[in-house]
Amino acid sequence: MSKVLLISSDCHAGALPDAYKAFMPAQFHQAADEWWLRYAREMMQRLGTFFDQEAVGDFTSQAGDAGAGKFQQDATSRALEATDEELWAFLNDPDSTIAPRRGEWDPAVRLQELEDDGIAGEVVFPQMAPFGAGLMQYRHPIDPAHNLAGNQAYNRWLADLCARNPGRHAGVAIVNVDDIGATVQEIRDAHAMGLFGGVLLPSSTGGHPFYHHIERYAPVWAVCEELNMPIHTHSGWSPDYGDVPSAAAMFISEVDMWAHRPFTAMVWSGAFERYPGLKLVLTETGCSWILELLRTLRFKADNPLFAHFTKGLSLTPEQYFQRNCYIGASFLPRHEVGDRYRIGVDKLMWGSDYPHMEGTWPNTMPRLQETFHDVPESEIRSMLGLQAAEVFGFDLSGMERIADRIGPDIAEITTPPLHAEAI
Amino acid sequence: MSKVLLISSDCHAGALPDAYKAFMPAQFHQAADEWWLRYAREMMQRLGTFFDQEAVGDFTSQAGDAGAGKFQQDATSRALEATDEELWAFLNDPDSTIAPRRGEWDPAVRLQELEDDGIAGEVVFPQMAPFGAGLMQYRHPIDPAHNLAGNQAYNRWLADLCARNPGRHAGVAIVNVDDIGATVQEIRDAHAMGLFGGVLLPSSTGGHPFYHHIERYAPVWAVCEELNMPIHTHSGWSPDYGDVPSAAAMFISEVDMWAHRPFTAMVWSGAFERYPGLKLVLTETGCSWILELLRTLRFKADNPLFAHFTKGLSLTPEQYFQRNCYIGASFLPRHEVGDRYRIGVDKLMWGSDYPHMEGTWPNTMPRLQETFHDVPESEIRSMLGLQAAEVFGFDLSGMERIADRIGPDIAEITTPPLHAEAI
Repeated sequence: MSKVLLISSDCHAGALPDAYKAFMPAQFHQAADEWWLRYAREMMQRLGTFFDQEAVGDFTSQAGDAGAGKFQQDATSRALEATDEELWAFLNDPDSTIAPRRGEWDPAVRLQELEDDGIAGEVVFPQMAPFGAGLMQYRHPIDPAHNLAGNQAYNRWLADLCARNPGRHAGVAIVNVDDIGATVQEIRDAHAMGLFGGVLLPSSTGGHPFYHHIERYAPVWAVCEELNMPIHTHSGWSPDYGDVPSAAAMFISEVDMWAHRPFTAMVWSGAFERYPGLKLVLTETGCSWILELLRTLRFKADNPLFAHFTKGLSLTPEQYFQRNCYIGASFLPRHEVGDRYRIGVDKLMWGSDYPHMEGTWPNTMPRLQETFHDVPESEIRSMLGLQAAEVFGFDLSGMERIADRIGPDIAEITTPPLHAEAI
Repeated sequence: MSKVLLISSDCHAGALPDAYKAFMPAQFHQAADEWWLRYAREMMQRLGTFFDQEAVGDFTSQAGDAGAGKFQQDATSRALEATDEELWAFLNDPDSTIAPRRGEWDPAVRLQELEDDGIAGEVVFPQMAPFGAGLMQYRHPIDPAHNLAGNQAYNRWLADLCARNPGRHAGVAIVNVDDIGATVQEIRDAHAMGLFGGVLLPSSTGGHPFYHHIERYAPVWAVCEELNMPIHTHSGWSPDYGDVPSAAAMFISEVDMWAHRPFTAMVWSGAFERYPGLKLVLTETGCSWILELLRTLRFKADNPLFAHFTKGLSLTPEQYFQRNCYIGASFLPRHEVGDRYRIGVDKLMWGSDYPHMEGTWPNTMPRLQETFHDVPESEIRSMLGLQAAEVFGFDLSGMERIADRIGPDIAEITTPPLHAEAI
């Protein structure tokens, strides 16, 4: 019996700040350094407020500002008092407590950690990228030329990382939507650079129209369909909840919601109607919410007046979801596994969220057992790897050879854990 | 057997534009006139785009811009070509097709239409109020002094309307949150004026911090608890989706979501913890969404890190919901009736949405039969009136005397309709 192929549809990578300079025109280097220093100080100031003088270890991944790495209270205090030179050294010292983990940017360490966790291939999302690019795109105003340089530097750095272990890392390109011509060009460049994970759509469009403006975004949908680049939304963006005690709770509670919005916009504006081959993957925003959203959209659309606003759509929201969309389900809670037939088993792709602490790494095997122990084998294989291989175009036979070397037996997943939670 | 007491927890009222001047300092009159004219022209321009030269009757209630009344395509064209003087006359002519219906502002007509529909009492929400106040508060930037005058004029006009039929209309005061001292004073004034329906919380706080900023909003929560004024959110606000074909579909799909957000903010920031007598009523934003939201909040809060962000909360989100919140369920679809035990029968209050065309008026009896025919009598009585009487403090014995005169027999509701939809 073959081993189980694991492809994580949700992992993250990011460099030490200095490393992006090799992929960025020199004219932006000084501004980039200044941006990182400002960002780090702001983050640490906030963490000081949040943690209220208690040491809680790695908060930043949890709160989505993962690029700043793992903060600890004592490290935070030290860094806050540091000069710019000291802080810059601290941010770029691979062994400091506030730098990204080595596996986030070192291809050899990364591959080893993935394999040790049983994972053959991965889809790679950003951490914080230079000039606020990436998951938090448009969280704060930034000079557009700087932001574009940040997006481009990240993509080129990521392509370089992914190329070190060919076929194993499906890198996801990041873009902004300031100038749609530039966005389309960056998607073409990303494809040419081998970033076959697709494109991360910013959850916020900043001051620009949202994604229901079909004329504005049609070139993006068109190029993604043409190049078979899946479009992703991924939790991470939120408005700034300010420096108050409940800000973190608000962030964690609402961050998925902000990343759900592009689905509705793309349905009603006809993105899926016009580009039937377009793929949208909704990653790390939960699963079961789609059932309530689809029910709401159906209820609203049943109103006779509504027909007027949706002329030209040949399918229902459910049908577009089934045809065009997937859910990057990350580590599913049990109740979401229980909803798999209502959502569609073939819509769900598991992810470890490596290297974030809220994910399953480095304990993926026991976590898989907790989640999937009573699920039929064919469904496990689909959700854990086969569907992702298909959606992103991994080389399946190559992947399966690797899985046979490093992947788990099915029994490692289907053996009931000691304390099994009901669905 | 007594008749069934119907109290609609969701109705709307609004005046002809000119009528607000009696409740507004003279210094604002000219600016108010200019605002109405500009608003009417913008609305009609948009409707022209939406309807694409087809006549579709009353769209505005559906789209939440209900204050502008019932637009028709031909009326729209006429109005677009009108001079300011002609348009002003048109907006203030009770018989014109773009003015509010007579029942929206004439207390005698209103009471007769409610009674003809079997309804003894009502909770009264706004239509569009002067200077953009009301359901769409903060949709567009406006001079703060003008906006405050608009809120105050509406509340004084509404108090006057409600006083004509004492005890029958639970008027809901509108406020903005520009200056919390002024907000608190307006709530005190509204209470003194007899607006016992409570206070409408704007779904957006504009450029101000959102409702999780406990220090900013604590005075509002405190005064509402002190005066037993329920706080409402009501669907209506959205960002401006622009002048594109899918804007209306986006509005209709997302408008509930924007009105859900204050619940999460009030839970995590401790509004219900600090003010245990505070009541929040979530009106015309659906029902079943609360189950998915509570499940999401529970899942997020189960993360050990989360405890750190919610120190000081003695209850779970579910428990705050059960203790402090109600749902103004309007006309429930069948699947939401089916969720009543999971939500809590005593949390649900029916509403007709009079006089909006998407509501049940003037056909409330057959609509009640469709929705409630297989529901036990005690639950019907609770959802249709008894719970609302309790939450808003209607005089129950007075209400029941009126219901005995104009209300339906229980059999009018529990007789199965010819084509009963499954739950």
